[in-house]
This record gives sequence, structure tokens and C-alpha cells, in this order.
Amino acid sequence: MTPVIDGLQYANWSPKIFQEMRAGGVDAVHVTISYHEDFRETVANIQKWNQFFEEHPDLIFQGFTADDIALAQRTGRTAIIFGSQNPSCIEDDIGLVEVLYRLGLRFMQLTYNNQSLLATGCYEDADTGLTRMGREVVAEMNRVGLVVDMSHSAERSTLDAIEHSTRSIAITHANPAAWHPAKRNKSDTVLRALSETGGMLGFSIYPHHLKDGSDCRLAGFCEMIARTAETYGIAHLGIGTDLCQDQPDSVVDWMRMGTWTKSVDYGEGSATQRGFPQMPDWFAGNLDFANIQAGLEGVGFSRAEVAALMGGNWLRFFQNSFGAQAQAAKKAAE
Amino acid sequence: MTPVIDGLQYANWSPKIFQEMRAGGVDAVHVTISYHEDFRETVANIQKWNQFFEEHPDLIFQGFTADDIALAQRTGRTAIIFGSQNPSCIEDDIGLVEVLYRLGLRFMQLTYNNQSLLATGCYEDADTGLTRMGREVVAEMNRVGLVVDMSHSAERSTLDAIEHSTRSIAITHANPAAWHPAKRNKSDTVLRALSETGGMLGFSIYPHHLKDGSDCRLAGFCEMIARTAETYGIAHLGIGTDLCQDQPDSVVDWMRMGTWTKSVDYGEGSATQRGFPQMPDWFAGNLDFANIQAGLEGVGFSRAEVAALMGGNWLRFFQNSFGAQAQAAKKAAE
Repeated sequence: MTPVIDGLQYANWSPKIFQEMRAGGVDAVHVTISYHEDFRETVANIQKWNQFFEEHPDLIFQGFTADDIALAQRTGRTAIIFGSQNPSCIEDDIGLVEVLYRLGLRFMQLTYNNQSLLATGCYEDADTGLTRMGREVVAEMNRVGLVVDMSHSAERSTLDAIEHSTRSIAITHANPAAWHPAKRNKSDTVLRALSETGGMLGFSIYPHHLKDGSDCRLAGFCEMIARTAETYGIAHLGIGTDLCQDQPDSVVDWMRMGTWTKSVDYGEGSATQRGFPQMPDWFAGNLDFANIQAGLEGVGFSRAEVAALMGGNWLRFFQNSFGAQAQAAKKAAE
Repeated sequence: MTPVIDGLQYANWSPKIFQEMRAGGVDAVHVTISYHEDFRETVANIQKWNQFFEEHPDLIFQGFTADDIALAQRTGRTAIIFGSQNPSCIEDDIGLVEVLYRLGLRFMQLTYNNQSLLATGCYEDADTGLTRMGREVVAEMNRVGLVVDMSHSAERSTLDAIEHSTRSIAITHANPAAWHPAKRNKSDTVLRALSETGGMLGFSIYPHHLKDGSDCRLAGFCEMIARTAETYGIAHLGIGTDLCQDQPDSVVDWMRMGTWTKSVDYGEGSATQRGFPQMPDWFAGNLDFANIQAGLEGVGFSRAEVAALMGGNWLRFFQNSFGAQAQAAKKAAE
């Protein structure tokens, strides 16, 4: 049985959500444990997760390897896989890459929306590509088996990361810009380079990444997936919902502004729509993965193709990507 | 009596050096208290300085305002003015600008050699100019009266800072690239934009910034100053020796490599000359400021001009630049 895997969530975690993950049949989720947090603050977030794991061993556990997905399926639980949306957690210290890997970090974005020490975010005017430190850190991430995630990065930086990384990278949560032009969605150039090197794209259901936003229809979303699969092949596509379930609007302010500005930055929103946008009615949360499955069947994908899109492709990517001992998927794909 | 002011030193501080400052007639020094240190580590460095101030009140004290230079002259001591060579000390938190100002920070470089969260360093291949956070932080530095220092920054970033800053900026330690081409020396475009906006240039005696390096003659150095004064005017020129007195070579490795790489980076040095270069024989340390004075007289500067170059210009810049209450020198200069 192919697992159901979500390539990215950042919920206001609670037992209620863990129960919904079970009810929704979600076998593994890449969860964001850090945005703007520094190393110590990221460790504090891990401590909170450790408490969740201790209190709810019947629902969730921490996933370290691809094999943990099978364990999740066998024991009827959800594997929680850690990731960071910004390299703030390694501060300016390349030695923290291995330390955070050991603590379970499996994905790290080289940038959030702004310039980082490593690369450029998609909201900057100018794009350096990988910086001197960025090239060093990507090599270290490759060595230990921590996935480079470029979901929020600018074009040249993303292409640089794809080229410089010796292992396939991921864009865990974004859509093709050709379908819906948005700073966070990705160009054909990026998607082509990504798929040609075995890199994964997780389709996002965050309304600002959707054509027609919160009013986007399930059929339209699944049609977009079908067109993307026709263009780039189906093997490296998955879901990365970007679900921010139960989060208060203060959190999206913090995501956008962190502590880098004293002004208001609306990010993908606007003065009149500053908070989290309403999710489409066909995907309100972890109970609704069956809707996506049905939608994919509805646009003509075979049962095997739906399984690949819902988690099979992520599973293979995890097998190739997590840890130093894995074969580099990029070389295999080339 | 015009004071003698050094625009930058990073020595292995000791009572011996403080005594040499007195013997050398140095009234104020902008000292580097932070390179790659984060906020807490920078505070620890301030604590070390507090101990020096407590133990040697007859030799040194912390300077907070331009008026403290007169106090130093009146009491026969050296005013120590804090600065940082990298924005690591504010981490990713704009709120730390005001906090560090309150602790006495009066200069902050927006970058060391690499890309920072604010701008691009002179060793990177590509140059973003000021980032989104960089523009916000420069505005905040302008508000509180903390000087923007672009000594180690790349060309476009430096021009951006000059344009974006509402107050004059400084290049505390560098020389004209036309005299000695080096990544750390500055182009005519930068020096023109700097001087036209009331910004200060401190001439460096660090051998990698000198024509003929450690063998550079005093007359050649002073001739270069004379040519620079002819081209850009004398009003915004001073000395910024970049003296790293008594530092072991391990420190220059740390300056260059911090914790951003696991490889060796030679910076301005090379595999065969990895350590600190030997200082020119006419400027071995704080005892030798009189040699520079004599050299400047030797190339034809008047006594008043020599006084301006040795400290008078820095004093006026401090008056205009430190603190929120000061008039913005840039506006006055335009």
C-alpha cells in the first residue's frame, strides 16, 4: 500500500490535529519546526515536539528515515519529519548543519522570502545566486543528507542550488507560475531543471499560490497537476499542502516580518487581506486528503499514478535523500 | 589643539597597548568589538572592555559622544569608541540596533567580506546592493545615530548605502583602488559618491591595502593621501590604520573563515602568506602616529591640513554622526 505523504505543513499543532491526520490517513508529514528561530530557539521547538511524541505515542512519532514511513503504516501512526523554512537555525555556523541533521532535520530552505547568508529569497529585487557560504553549506547538506529546499527562493538562486547540489533538491510547496503567476510559484526554467535532476515539486494548496485563490476548484487544481505531469513527467511530483491549520493571523505577520523590519510587510497578502487566506472548501485540513485523491482520479490519472502523486514519489525521494549512506538520486536520474 | 583619532584598530588589547596609545598621543580610537560574534557574544566582549575601563581609568575610557574626545584630551586619556565589522551582532533583529547603540556601538559595517542579511561583501561574485532588511536597518541606524561603515562591502552595495542613507556614511579603513588595486580598496565612483555626501574615508596601513605591501614607503603613502585630497577634497579624509597589534595569526584565520566554511579561505593572503602581514617599519603600532604626521608635512600639507587629516576631520564627523540629536552631516554637505 503506497503511503500518503504531505510535503509541508505548519499547523498550530495539537492532539486534535494529530487525530485528524490519523482520520485523514496521512502516513507522514514534513512539518516546519523553524522559520526565523535561531539554533537555540529551534532546539526549544524540538523540545516541544519531544513532548508531543511522549504524550501521543499512539498517534505520532518522529521520522528519521524513509523506513519510518513503513513503520507508520504498520503501526497506524503518522511520521513527523522535521524541516526548516529558513537557514536561521544554523545561524552563521556551518557546523550546525550536521548537529541539526542528528536532531532529525531533513529539509532546510536556503532562504525564506528575504536574502539569507546562503541565497536570495523571492521577494528581493536582486538575486545573487548562492553566496560563498551558500556553496559551502549546500556541500555540507549533501554530505550529511539534509535536503535543500528552495520553495521560497528567487530564480537564479534556485537554479544555482540545482546546479551546485550533488543530490536532488526539493521545492516542497509551490506551483507552476505558468498556471498562476505569483512570486512564490516557479518558472518553466526552474521546473525543467528541477525535474531533469530528480528534484521533487510538492503542489501547494495555500490560496495565494492558487489560480482564483480560495475559490480555486478541485478540478482546476488537479487539471494543473495533470498538465504539469504531461510537461515534466509524473515521477517527481507530490503534494505539499502548505497547510497552516488553526494558526492565528498573528502568525502570518510573524512569518512575513520576523524581526527584520519595523514597518508592515504584507507578503503575499495586502492591507485589506492581511491574515491567513481561507482555504478552498475541498481542503480545509488533514481530514481532506481523500478529496485530492478523488480529484486526481477525476482528471484521468490511473490508480497507480494517484498513489505516486499522493506519497509514492515522496517516499522514493526520502529513500534517496535522507542520510549520508543513501545513493544520490540526482546522479541516478541523470 | 586638534585631537589625533584613529578610525580603526583591532588589537590584542592589553595595558601595554593602552600605554602605547598614551605615549603615541592618540586621543581616540574606533575599536572593533565584534566580527562574527552574535549579540550575546558581542555583549561578552563589551564586558571585557568594561573590565579594562575599570582597571585602567588613568589610560582609557569609553567614548559615547564627540565631546568625549575633548574630555580625553583634557584628562590625558584615550577615548575608546566601539564598532562592529559585521552586522552579526544584530543577528536578524532590527531591534538590536538601538540596544547596541545604547551600549555604545557607534559604527557598524553592513558586511564583512561575505554576503550578510543586509548587503554584499567585497569577496562575493554577485552584489545585490542593499537587501530588504538592509534598507530597513540603514534607516534605523540613521534614526539612532549609528554610523554605516562600508569598508569591506562590494561596490554596488556601497553605492546603495550612500544613496539610501540619510546621513553620511564612513569607509573607516581602505585606500583608493587607483593607487593599489585590491578587493578591499575603493573605486573612484565610490570615493566620489562618498565625498560628495560628506562621507569619511580613513586611510588604511594594513599591508594588503598598500602599494608594495609591507615595503610601502611612508612618502609613497603620504603622496597617495595628497593625490586623494587633490581629487576629492581634504575635508572628509582621515586615518584608519586597521592596526591588529599583537594578534596571533590564528585571529586572521578566524576573521576570514569565521564559521561559514569548513575549507581554508586565505582572504587577502595566500597559501604562502597566510598570517598577518608585517606592518611597514614606519608604522609598527600606536607609538608611531608621529611618523604619519611628519610624513604628511613632508609631502607639503600645511600644519592645519595635517591636523585635519590626523583627527580634526574625524572629530567633525563624530559631531555630526553620533546620536539622534546631531544634525545630519549629509544634508549639510549637499
